[in-house]
Amino acid sequence: MVYLGVIGGARCTPEVDACAEQVGGEVARSGAILVCGGMGGVMEAASRGARLAGGVTVGILPGLDRESANPYITVAIPTGLGEARNALVVRASDGLIAIDGSYGTLSEIALGLQLGRPIVGLDTWKIDAPIIRVSNPLDAVHRLLEELGVQNS
Amino acid sequence: MVYLGVIGGARCTPEVDACAEQVGGEVARSGAILVCGGMGGVMEAASRGARLAGGVTVGILPGLDRESANPYITVAIPTGLGEARNALVVRASDGLIAIDGSYGTLSEIALGLQLGRPIVGLDTWKIDAPIIRVSNPLDAVHRLLEELGVQNS
Amino acid sequence: MVYLGVIGGARCTPEVDACAEQVGGEVARSGAILVCGGMGGVMEAASRGARLAGGVTVGILPGLDRESANPYITVAIPTGLGEARNALVVRASDGLIAIDGSYGTLSEIALGLQLGRPIVGLDTWKIDAPIIRVSNPLDAVHRLLEELGVQNS
Amino acid sequence: MVYLGVIGGARCTPEVDACAEQVGGEVARSGAILVCGGMGGVMEAASRGARLAGGVTVGILPGLDRESANPYITVAIPTGLGEARNALVVRASDGLIAIDGSYGTLSEIALGLQLGRPIVGLDTWKIDAPIIRVSNPLDAVHRLLEELGVQNS
Repeated sequence: MVYLGVIGGARCTPEVDACAEQVGGEVARSGAILVCGGMGGVMEAASRGARLAGGVTVGILPGLDRESANPYITVAIPTGLGEARNALVVRASDGLIAIDGSYGTLSEIALGLQLGRPIVGLDTWKIDAPIIRVSNPLDAVHRLLEELGVQNS
Repeated sequence: MVYLGVIGGARCTPEVDACAEQVGGEVARSGAILVCGGMGGVMEAASRGARLAGGVTVGILPGLDRESANPYITVAIPTGLGEARNALVVRASDGLIAIDGSYGTLSEIALGLQLGRPIVGLDTWKIDAPIIRVSNPLDAVHRLLEELGVQNS
Repeated sequence: MVYLGVIGGARCTPEVDACAEQVGGEVARSGAILVCGGMGGVMEAASRGARLAGGVTVGILPGLDRESANPYITVAIPTGLGEARNALVVRASDGLIAIDGSYGTLSEIALGLQLGRPIVGLDTWKIDAPIIRVSNPLDAVHRLLEELGVQNS
Repeated sequence: MVYLGVIGGARCTPEVDACAEQVGGEVARSGAILVCGGMGGVMEAASRGARLAGGVTVGILPGLDRESANPYITVAIPTGLGEARNALVVRASDGLIAIDGSYGTLSEIALGLQLGRPIVGLDTWKIDAPIIRVSNPLDAVHRLLEELGVQNS
């Protein structure tokens, strides 16, 4: 089983929301489990997309309250670690798709790079690092699966 | 959705294994998600029981390698936190069933008590604390659901 | 440099407070650094004893606010991990002295046993485990140093 | 007491080493405690500078082995959390000075920005964020103290 992490801000524009939802849908259609931080914004949109496509979503929450998860999370893991849980989102993901996002997303990108996880970026942080830049949500998932050596269906 | 944690040693006797498998099966039949540390022994037996009964199991692993999970884990979360992940097993569980077990299990019981989680014990640590002692695997699950105010099916 | 952990409840009786203060003083006189959870009760009393004897104290705090440390902490480390920081108190200590205490202390004893740390107990949890039981604060420190192979001055 | 974090790579050039050593020295002369990840490179050079100037250094280590700390650490805290300890370095620091550095440093910068910590950068990551850029080691410390509202001696 492949676990794909989708990282991005807890708040986002309608455009970013639509993009994240498409990413989530394609993650589910690829048969992968979607991992995220379980909150709103990009995390919620990607989870919604995945669930509508029949997929499974895992939310690794910063707080202690499972009810803080967005409504599209299948398995909600309250950690109580605050933003230190970002490291767990990365460790639980075989590869990452970063969509937009703020400092939390940047920390996840950095931790992912440090751990050697392949990272695909959709309109995300501009940094001098081997992030695979794409502009299309479906491409994001396909490129990541390719990097992971997973056959696309 | 209710999340029931099953805690116990990474190695156990055949008797304890059989007991844990029955607990896992009943967790699944109750409709709850089974949470555990994802490794062998009691964790593996409970996961096996849950999966054979059609349930979902979450393994919160101490290491960074998802492949270290036992084969009956549906969602494997590698944390890389070592035994500090015991706190996450407890936080991710609405209530806990402790079966036999050694020091790791004792730490989870203690953290569960500290967090106010109801704990049911099956032949586990003798300590002066409000652990609900039962001797039968099915009773363990039923008593825990009762404590959590969940209607048994 | 030797690091000795002193664990116990965040609230305690005057008798336990006096005992913990004596333990802290002897830790400092032995030249060791005192590690604790940085809060009140036993942690504060032990820190007070250590500081009055000219020692150094490290408080590994559950919250994000350094100001929550008791006033006798030399180096205050806010972790924001909640009680998951108990694992860090144990990992940062070469050996542990448990004084009285409730569930948090029990979790630290259990994690210490799991990590193979020598543990000396002063009127603490009765569990079936190799805790070195003593009844005198000075003996507690001397026995722990002996276990660690450190020459008493 | 003010705690200043110095973050940067575990390996660095002689030029970066010299810069970090000067930063560490000035941190110590300002009376602040120096916090770092406790390993080599920038962390070691900054710790060396601080110790040579009579200061106190705290190393929050990724591993479980205290002996992995560089020789200039006064208080070594083995966490066993791997790179998840980066969040603890940030939380334990009132402000951060980033010197050069790779992905781990970037994750600490991002977590610091997320937590609202002031960050001063010396030839470090180019990102679109409110990092105070300086080119001189002494300026780095002075500007950070200024941001923290601490009177320079």
